[in-house]
Amino acid sequence: MVKIRVPAAPSIRRLPSYLNIIKQAQAEGYDYISGTVIANELNLEPIQVRKDLGITGIVGKPKRGYPVAPLVVAIERFLGWDTKTGAIIVGAGNLATALTGYPQFKLHGLHFLAAFDISPEKIGTSIHGVPVYAMSEVAAIVQTMGIEIAVLTVPSTCAQETADICMQNGIKGIWNFTNVKIKAQEGVAVQREDLTSGYALLSVMLNSRHPSRIKT
Amino acid sequence: MVKIRVPAAPSIRRLPSYLNIIKQAQAEGYDYISGTVIANELNLEPIQVRKDLGITGIVGKPKRGYPVAPLVVAIERFLGWDTKTGAIIVGAGNLATALTGYPQFKLHGLHFLAAFDISPEKIGTSIHGVPVYAMSEVAAIVQTMGIEIAVLTVPSTCAQETADICMQNGIKGIWNFTNVKIKAQEGVAVQREDLTSGYALLSVMLNSRHPSRIKT
Repeated sequence: MVKIRVPAAPSIRRLPSYLNIIKQAQAEGYDYISGTVIANELNLEPIQVRKDLGITGIVGKPKRGYPVAPLVVAIERFLGWDTKTGAIIVGAGNLATALTGYPQFKLHGLHFLAAFDISPEKIGTSIHGVPVYAMSEVAAIVQTMGIEIAVLTVPSTCAQETADICMQNGIKGIWNFTNVKIKAQEGVAVQREDLTSGYALLSVMLNSRHPSRIKT
Repeated sequence: MVKIRVPAAPSIRRLPSYLNIIKQAQAEGYDYISGTVIANELNLEPIQVRKDLGITGIVGKPKRGYPVAPLVVAIERFLGWDTKTGAIIVGAGNLATALTGYPQFKLHGLHFLAAFDISPEKIGTSIHGVPVYAMSEVAAIVQTMGIEIAVLTVPSTCAQETADICMQNGIKGIWNFTNVKIKAQEGVAVQREDLTSGYALLSVMLNSRHPSRIKT
């Protein structure tokens, strides 16, 4: 497997939060927004915000801050969120239902075009307007529609097998919500979403405020 | 509002992944595990792994690596995951159903003890064995059971109102899955989970492998 290294992954993770704040400033009619305002809104250090936004190529002006409209364009272009991207979601359970109903994705150009499941009761239904197909339809739908992204919300036990089917049919990016490390084909990007990461952060914040929670 | 700063948040986010790998090594009978093995498994640099694990206080030995059993204990203690923690989940929709069914949380000591919703059809039912109560029961249940953590999976429009009810009744940590920045009371830790962060990372990885995806 070829390793795909992303420079400054934590910076990239923060870009969507910046984008939300900057878009809101834009909606409120502001032409400029300062790094300090963004930093305060997100409980970050201003120097971190300036460093993160630097990866988009936009530089702030002293005393005025960042030009709002070009910054929105630059962040969206950097992320590739300025184009419509189709995706499939495999495993049409509760998590898939939650994800397909999450309004932010469509705002960022991500459109779920098809869901897949093995359960006969689910096949033929739809989740938030996304039709649910049998797994045997993956090849036809992915290839016909030229879909590049698959979101995996299947049980961990069939994660690799499902990923293999996706990759064989041209999927180039897998967003993996299972607990399994996917062996990717060359050229395929895999992002594993581990919900316990956020819980780790909450735990440490909570412990730091309430040291009595820690056993000694 | 007092800002709660967590040192090395990206390091903390990675600890659960380390813990999984180290526990697996433990289950397979290994006494030591090298930082390089962990790094390879997660596509990280060994120096990053050593830096991250350093926050737990455990130091690896040259040529042998980290002692597995003490490292598991140290990570779990650092995160406060060596004790059982009760939580409520507010908003008993699809995301709540997915989260309460996520087996990793229980493994890390997080137990959902009660769910809450405003929908009369949901009240009195249960999700993955977690009883769903009316919002009017938050006070009694949180106070009686001394619960400190609330997971917010309500619609964004009632996020702050719901958080206020939780904080008024003694909740000290809020894991916020809504799209709203929660104004926290002093001493309350809030971790906002933004699912678009992971999508940003996947997008950048995908674009870096397939530059034709980027409009020029």
